[in-house]
Amino acid sequence: MTGLMQDEVFMAFCTYSLIVIMKLMIMAPITAYYRISRGAFANAEDVGLKPIEERKKMLRNHPDVERVRRCHLNDLENVIPFVLVGFFYALSGPELSTALLHFRLFAASRICHTIVYLAALRQPCRALSFLVGVAVTLSMTYNVLSKVLVL
Amino acid sequence: MTGLMQDEVFMAFCTYSLIVIMKLMIMAPITAYYRISRGAFANAEDVGLKPIEERKKMLRNHPDVERVRRCHLNDLENVIPFVLVGFFYALSGPELSTALLHFRLFAASRICHTIVYLAALRQPCRALSFLVGVAVTLSMTYNVLSKVLVL
Amino acid sequence: MTGLMQDEVFMAFCTYSLIVIMKLMIMAPITAYYRISRGAFANAEDVGLKPIEERKKMLRNHPDVERVRRCHLNDLENVIPFVLVGFFYALSGPELSTALLHFRLFAASRICHTIVYLAALRQPCRALSFLVGVAVTLSMTYNVLSKVLVL
Repeated sequence: MTGLMQDEVFMAFCTYSLIVIMKLMIMAPITAYYRISRGAFANAEDVGLKPIEERKKMLRNHPDVERVRRCHLNDLENVIPFVLVGFFYALSGPELSTALLHFRLFAASRICHTIVYLAALRQPCRALSFLVGVAVTLSMTYNVLSKVLVL
Repeated sequence: MTGLMQDEVFMAFCTYSLIVIMKLMIMAPITAYYRISRGAFANAEDVGLKPIEERKKMLRNHPDVERVRRCHLNDLENVIPFVLVGFFYALSGPELSTALLHFRLFAASRICHTIVYLAALRQPCRALSFLVGVAVTLSMTYNVLSKVLVL
Repeated sequence: MTGLMQDEVFMAFCTYSLIVIMKLMIMAPITAYYRISRGAFANAEDVGLKPIEERKKMLRNHPDVERVRRCHLNDLENVIPFVLVGFFYALSGPELSTALLHFRLFAASRICHTIVYLAALRQPCRALSFLVGVAVTLSMTYNVLSKVLVL
């Protein structure tokens, strides 16, 4: 157990996993910021302190809030698979330098993806940053399956 | 391998992880219950046995169903990161009592969060229960990164 | 560490986890296909190259796209818990044949679920394929908790 945490590849995997999970979790305060600054809430109890005539107006969707929520969901759909696949990959005994290349590329791609998504930069910026992350996860999957395959 | 499952901290992590994952999965039958009792479905095939004139009316959103779905999504966004971060935390060799404090606080905060969300209790109940869970995950992340950091 | 990857149950768990995670990730290109073929996009920058008069019309929801997205979310809600619970289950020392039965049933149920959902086959096809997956995860949870329980 302590053995696992003394392995350099696993320590690198641990570090980068925590970075991308923190990246994922920071979407929650960003959503809160957009909800408050745009005045667009989802729950009646969240606008309970406002004057009655304002309340109904604030229970609405706002394009900026929906954008942050799509970005958050996209993180869930990509960051969690990366951590799960990365775990098997880290256990499969890759070279440290190869592993670091995978982990760094993925972390960079997801940070870029968020910036590009929230700033609504023109395509193909978002598509590219998304695809780099997917390519890393696929490459790790291929690496693991080429060593371990029990059907 | 059996060694990992004989470590007390890891066994506690395993128990509480399973509790919060079950808490997450119970949202599916709760959604089904609200869909049926409110008569609000998302798929045409789900209302296939109803009389034709009723079908279109039942393919709609209902605020109660949307509330359960937001609660479910919030669980995904918080419970899964807890389990992933908690795994690294459990491997990093914390004191059993400290680890149990983290795990119990998180499980309690998420159970409270669901009750508060579904009952639409006034704020800041939901915000507080949400933030306790986030604080636990951040504290575990900080603990792991202070011991393991390979960039 | 290499020990874990030489254990047959763990290797089987690794293989089936990667299969269902790939199944989850393939929903992203399927969504892209439906968005393009149905002309229904969520972000203004995704239709930036179209003539101006067409742009607004393409920023809309389409029932087929929403169907794929619900299928994707349902995968997140079920595949990720399977992998997390399956990890504890694989460590808890089950018989290889019993473990393989669990893993194969789950993978089959999720592949059926996606086909049934996207083809909008009549109920209870989708409900059944969903419930088989849930039953596997519950059975693994029960197995682990009956061996490991530290509250």
